Amino acid sequence: MKIRKVAGGVTAPQGFRAGGMACGIKKDQPDLALLVSEREASAAGVFTTNRVKAAPVVLSSRQIRGGKARAIVANSGNANACTGEEGLRDARTMVESTARALEIPPREVLVCSTGVIGEPLPMEALTRGIETLASRLSTQGGETFAQAIMTTDSFPKSTAREVTTHQGAFRIGGAAKGAGMIHPHMATMLAFITTDLEVEPSTLQKSLKEAVDGSFNRITVDGDTSTNDTVLMLANGASGIKGEGEVLEAFALALEEVCRELAHMIIRDGEGATKVVKIAVKGALNREEAEKAARRVANSLLVKTAFYGEDPNWGRLAAALGSSGCFLDPAKLSIHIEDVEIVRGGLGIPQAQEAAHQIMGRKEYTVTMDLGLGTGEYWIWTCDLTYDYIRINAEYRS
Amino acid sequence: MKIRKVAGGVTAPQGFRAGGMACGIKKDQPDLALLVSEREASAAGVFTTNRVKAAPVVLSSRQIRGGKARAIVANSGNANACTGEEGLRDARTMVESTARALEIPPREVLVCSTGVIGEPLPMEALTRGIETLASRLSTQGGETFAQAIMTTDSFPKSTAREVTTHQGAFRIGGAAKGAGMIHPHMATMLAFITTDLEVEPSTLQKSLKEAVDGSFNRITVDGDTSTNDTVLMLANGASGIKGEGEVLEAFALALEEVCRELAHMIIRDGEGATKVVKIAVKGALNREEAEKAARRVANSLLVKTAFYGEDPNWGRLAAALGSSGCFLDPAKLSIHIEDVEIVRGGLGIPQAQEAAHQIMGRKEYTVTMDLGLGTGEYWIWTCDLTYDYIRINAEYRS
Repeated sequence: MKIRKVAGGVTAPQGFRAGGMACGIKKDQPDLALLVSEREASAAGVFTTNRVKAAPVVLSSRQIRGGKARAIVANSGNANACTGEEGLRDARTMVESTARALEIPPREVLVCSTGVIGEPLPMEALTRGIETLASRLSTQGGETFAQAIMTTDSFPKSTAREVTTHQGAFRIGGAAKGAGMIHPHMATMLAFITTDLEVEPSTLQKSLKEAVDGSFNRITVDGDTSTNDTVLMLANGASGIKGEGEVLEAFALALEEVCRELAHMIIRDGEGATKVVKIAVKGALNREEAEKAARRVANSLLVKTAFYGEDPNWGRLAAALGSSGCFLDPAKLSIHIEDVEIVRGGLGIPQAQEAAHQIMGRKEYTVTMDLGLGTGEYWIWTCDLTYDYIRINAEYRS
Repeated sequence: MKIRKVAGGVTAPQGFRAGGMACGIKKDQPDLALLVSEREASAAGVFTTNRVKAAPVVLSSRQIRGGKARAIVANSGNANACTGEEGLRDARTMVESTARALEIPPREVLVCSTGVIGEPLPMEALTRGIETLASRLSTQGGETFAQAIMTTDSFPKSTAREVTTHQGAFRIGGAAKGAGMIHPHMATMLAFITTDLEVEPSTLQKSLKEAVDGSFNRITVDGDTSTNDTVLMLANGASGIKGEGEVLEAFALALEEVCRELAHMIIRDGEGATKVVKIAVKGALNREEAEKAARRVANSLLVKTAFYGEDPNWGRLAAALGSSGCFLDPAKLSIHIEDVEIVRGGLGIPQAQEAAHQIMGRKEYTVTMDLGLGTGEYWIWTCDLTYDYIRINAEYRS
């Protein structure tokens, strides 16, 4: 079994066409994306846990229950969230327009939206756009698809893998958008994954859920949970290979790689972020405690501004840990920035400050906090909190 | 019964002397504060819930168990937190030096520290300072006391009330410091309250706890919980009036007023804050649900940056509500900015945007979110998140 990186994003696997265009939601920028499988595909989805769910989330989570789909239509610039009955009608119209243009049944179309909350969709522009875009799809369209789902993202997020097994080769491709409202628990982004492996819907759902837990659920930009987060996956079997036994294991591995690379792109492109920091907690009483501690530290504004200031301010790390509610004996705590120990037995090591400060000048590093109590571990990616986060979010709509 | 505002802060009540000075922890700025009752006083305290407790918190929470105290010594510039055994010894030395200088037993001295975490206290400077300060205390010293406990505060926080009852008049005075790490649940500030009413220790503790729940526990700047938060109260009975029956009720009312005014000063002076916003949730299924929702909205970075941008971005309010975990039916949600309704039945009212934007230009306003489900209510004060928060916290130690 061999996994290697390939180009092409969501159209890297066989039997998928995709594309993107500017339909008029945003000003002269791509805002409509379409992804189609040449044959019916197994479909899986993971959706936001926010109680306020956008219309497309409500609709797609219903549509996907059948476990089969062929197309995904997505727009950026408008989230179609908090739009009531009209929003649901609009999401349904997007599905129907797509089905008509592609000559497939509406039940095989999934829909996603991302952008501003609470504004009605410009349906005329959208319907016309869908019709045009349907005729322009291409097996090379992965990158334009990734561009069309961007909001405040500063670069398109796309990747793919080829997995070679004894049974032959299959591929997994993915595209994502992130930037703001990035918070664990399927909160805050869109991601679309394709594969030409043949996988049963229930197996696909399980694999996707596991991959999401090890990737998209481990990133946090601002602790805010979006109304629209969605990860959708289509498996069309075009490679002729069945997802069973060893092949399925290889598939799970490569799928996690794809999801993790996309998640890393999202955190790297967090609003205003200049650094990616991996917060690793170990030595907790159990995994749940470790996760609670890691999430609290990753979301502390004081910790995130210290990362921006490249300040090895371990007091803030300790204070955040202490407020997480996880069991803690300060006298057993040690903290490393990469391999530099800055806290041992709960006490700072002053002579390590300069070396730690140097490492914190990097674009990416790991902070490891060992609670010294048990074997519970968890890690999560966070980013620094900067002036630009404020600028982007204070000015978003004006 | 009449309550009126008076000058003097913690020395407004009879029988208290206080003062502050620069002892050398900070560069040429007041950093040592001392408050003494002429007679033994009932003492009450509320302490941080952070699992990482600073040495003075550990010591004072032990000292206060006896229910009696006469003096409080506090320093700013250094939190004496995460300082291990040495830190505990240093806190004990502060208590002993104060006791010696005032010629009272060490068990009657309480101690607080606030400032940088993880650095040892400069004990020689502190001990010398305590000796000097003990000889300079004054019944007019309330304001200098309030100045000496400041860290990143931009103004001293001090207030007092006189309560006139059938039994005569008594006073309540208070001083506080806040600014960073401000978060509910007794997290992030120091406050000292005095009264010349005679109150039993257990009654005093109960009254203080209730007043704190209605004031200091209703403010949040950044969701971070400090290792040092402490509210201490001394009641010395110098007015000759007993805290019983009607008098006790008047006392509770005035105490809450004092605490609420101090809490409001703290939130107004939140790091980088330019606005105070009251988040009021009503119509929740119960009070706990309302509190959960209000706290989530008050801590959302996207909401707080929208306040800074004076943007009536109700989508972010709805998204934050939705992610709070509180029960919610979007179709029943209404949102007001002061008296301007911007959301009704879960849908935005576009023509209200401009009026809402105007109100958001004010320094202080209320956002009311009615869930339309039950009778649960809660409110909390938050502030906007600005460039200055980042500047203050990215540069804190450099």
